[in-house]
Amino acid sequence: MPTVFFLSDYGTQDEFVGVVHAVIEAIAPGTRVIDLTHQIPAFDVRAGAHTLMRAVPHLGPGVVLAVVDPGVGSGRRGVCIPVDSARDVPSYFVGPDNGLLPGAAELVAETPIGRAFELRRAEPAGERGATFDGRDLFAPVAAALCGGTPPHTLGDPVDPASLVRLFGGVVEHGRWHDSRTCLRAEVTWVDHFGNVQLAATVVDARTAGLPSTGMVEVAALTEGGLDGRHTLSPALVPEGLVLRCVRTFSDLGHGELGLLVDANGHLAIAAGEASAAHWLNVAAGELVVLAW
Amino acid sequence: MPTVFFLSDYGTQDEFVGVVHAVIEAIAPGTRVIDLTHQIPAFDVRAGAHTLMRAVPHLGPGVVLAVVDPGVGSGRRGVCIPVDSARDVPSYFVGPDNGLLPGAAELVAETPIGRAFELRRAEPAGERGATFDGRDLFAPVAAALCGGTPPHTLGDPVDPASLVRLFGGVVEHGRWHDSRTCLRAEVTWVDHFGNVQLAATVVDARTAGLPSTGMVEVAALTEGGLDGRHTLSPALVPEGLVLRCVRTFSDLGHGELGLLVDANGHLAIAAGEASAAHWLNVAAGELVVLAW
Amino acid sequence: MPTVFFLSDYGTQDEFVGVVHAVIEAIAPGTRVIDLTHQIPAFDVRAGAHTLMRAVPHLGPGVVLAVVDPGVGSGRRGVCIPVDSARDVPSYFVGPDNGLLPGAAELVAETPIGRAFELRRAEPAGERGATFDGRDLFAPVAAALCGGTPPHTLGDPVDPASLVRLFGGVVEHGRWHDSRTCLRAEVTWVDHFGNVQLAATVVDARTAGLPSTGMVEVAALTEGGLDGRHTLSPALVPEGLVLRCVRTFSDLGHGELGLLVDANGHLAIAAGEASAAHWLNVAAGELVVLAW
Repeated sequence: MPTVFFLSDYGTQDEFVGVVHAVIEAIAPGTRVIDLTHQIPAFDVRAGAHTLMRAVPHLGPGVVLAVVDPGVGSGRRGVCIPVDSARDVPSYFVGPDNGLLPGAAELVAETPIGRAFELRRAEPAGERGATFDGRDLFAPVAAALCGGTPPHTLGDPVDPASLVRLFGGVVEHGRWHDSRTCLRAEVTWVDHFGNVQLAATVVDARTAGLPSTGMVEVAALTEGGLDGRHTLSPALVPEGLVLRCVRTFSDLGHGELGLLVDANGHLAIAAGEASAAHWLNVAAGELVVLAW
Repeated sequence: MPTVFFLSDYGTQDEFVGVVHAVIEAIAPGTRVIDLTHQIPAFDVRAGAHTLMRAVPHLGPGVVLAVVDPGVGSGRRGVCIPVDSARDVPSYFVGPDNGLLPGAAELVAETPIGRAFELRRAEPAGERGATFDGRDLFAPVAAALCGGTPPHTLGDPVDPASLVRLFGGVVEHGRWHDSRTCLRAEVTWVDHFGNVQLAATVVDARTAGLPSTGMVEVAALTEGGLDGRHTLSPALVPEGLVLRCVRTFSDLGHGELGLLVDANGHLAIAAGEASAAHWLNVAAGELVVLAW
Repeated sequence: MPTVFFLSDYGTQDEFVGVVHAVIEAIAPGTRVIDLTHQIPAFDVRAGAHTLMRAVPHLGPGVVLAVVDPGVGSGRRGVCIPVDSARDVPSYFVGPDNGLLPGAAELVAETPIGRAFELRRAEPAGERGATFDGRDLFAPVAAALCGGTPPHTLGDPVDPASLVRLFGGVVEHGRWHDSRTCLRAEVTWVDHFGNVQLAATVVDARTAGLPSTGMVEVAALTEGGLDGRHTLSPALVPEGLVLRCVRTFSDLGHGELGLLVDANGHLAIAAGEASAAHWLNVAAGELVVLAW
């Protein structure tokens, strides 16, 4: 039984997600659809791409269907990216060509993308508008792939180098203004519990010499920061906050702020049974500094 | 493998939806349950009916189980409405007799409802109250239908003309007070992205002579409006708002207001990567005017 | 096809739930996963335990996977509790040893817990932290059990008497300060509709002599209350509120407050198409008094 792994910014208050499930079931009966999440912030392609990258290492064979698509109905391409791997990983990534898919596809493939197809679009049935490609384009393609249709019959090959890509998670290390060592990093995710994930991985931390015990200061990134290529905003972290380096959430007292390696191998700022994001006043896409 | 398409106002914070899934699985193992949505506003039968009507054109064979049921436990009837169609559409609609089902059932059948059954009620097991018909009445019926039980063994036939019905989505066209042509319409839906769907379809728009390019004014419906049969409220739209007629969301600049044909063939007011409902200050069930 | 019944406090905004589904599918393909709910308030083990106890009477065969786990990554044990029953009920409860599981397991078994196993933990793969036992420990165990692995190969037997347990829902009856009969009870649940469930069951009500018609006063529990063992808070109910004893929600006028036996056999305070919790200003874990 093939599996579709489905992520979107459709939310759950409307029938969008259910209708996509129904379309897949009608075309490829018996296909299993596993919802990764549908609460990516509306139009936030970058948040969707980060979420996919966290999820894909844990997915088995199947098709990843991902739709965060502010350009729906415009000239932006719909694409299918095959993954050629001997391991039990998803075989195809399907969605808009806006940067949502390539990072996760390459993470799964463990190689650069070798092939991609621009999906052919059928006209919407009847008098319906062209605003729901999840239902009218991507779900039928995902279902067809589950049914064994080869991707070259669903679209025309395009140069993989032409796929839209997002810049990677921002991480730098160096000296802070007071000459302490520091790590500057993008906040990539604030989860349901208020944990604040940074783009910096445990490898980045080791390279920068971040201690695994003791205290680290966290601050807003102000001047002298990143290389200017990026449009991320500095956070508005209150002054004087310090983090205790711990192994897990329950090492922290109630409300105490800490720094740990999270379940994805990234540095994350947490608070004991409380929201670290709330204490720090940060959101995904902002920049912070750790100094020690 | 039969499919149940399940819609309700149960929300997702409690175990209601999961328990209904479990009851269906226990009675008819292997039945697939596709959740359309469970975030219909509490008790809002009209919103539930509109949502069902948007979803059903995309559903394959199976049973539609819909529960928005402020009258649960009272004398209101539970019903099963069979659909007689040669096409691959749902065969049965199951839920309360309060107007939720008939519109969607007739849309699928493409004919008036020919048969309906009043469901027989088993006593709730043990000392439990009569407040959860989704679990105790409708889910067992849906599961029995999936297992092949004929509907006449689950209830007694009733006159289809006796089914409770809601009035249709309100649409009128005519002259506005300044003698421009106008279309008066109910807001039927504000979706997760803040798009404002109107009861007016692309056919209504064509009949009224609505232009497909250029600008249209949107305003609150005040006096001289609809026929007085309906209990809908005027919206409180700020004065002087104009909409640009476009084909899709991405034709709009950031925050720009537009009018388009949505994926259901209805007119919808949208804003470029923003919530049109927020700009317009409207909610489902209110009335607006488009003038040109 | 085996079934996993999955409850957590993971919320639905992130990929946590989807990743757990994917892990189960990868290990035991074809396993059905029914989500009970993932919106248990973060870290609220007691709310999770109450929700499980309401749900389990309606579950068929399978594995209950429940994760509300503020102690993740610490020394707290992960456990598997087998249920020995001839009836079609879940065979195993899997989750943290923090009080979440035993009440529901005993409710299903209809006997005290006879066996329990402390789960053996594999090291997290690669450089990932130890903060996601739902994915790394409990889901693989649930999948293995679905695949037929016996529990004694997944962990070591522990004394069932050593399992962490929560105190039961608080209920007392007696005399109120004005000498009327009263029932003091914990608020165990405020549902999506604002209905306020009490720990008192229909049996408690009968024992205390609560009338089934007429009016009952509801008040905050102040002094002279419960036995002091518990850490529950008094509610801040406005003075002078009375409840009409009814059979179902629709017996109440719009906004009228009432008392009924809910679908779980518990007393619940409801308001006609409105939120009783909002009127009463109460939340789960607080204490109220009914007097008559």
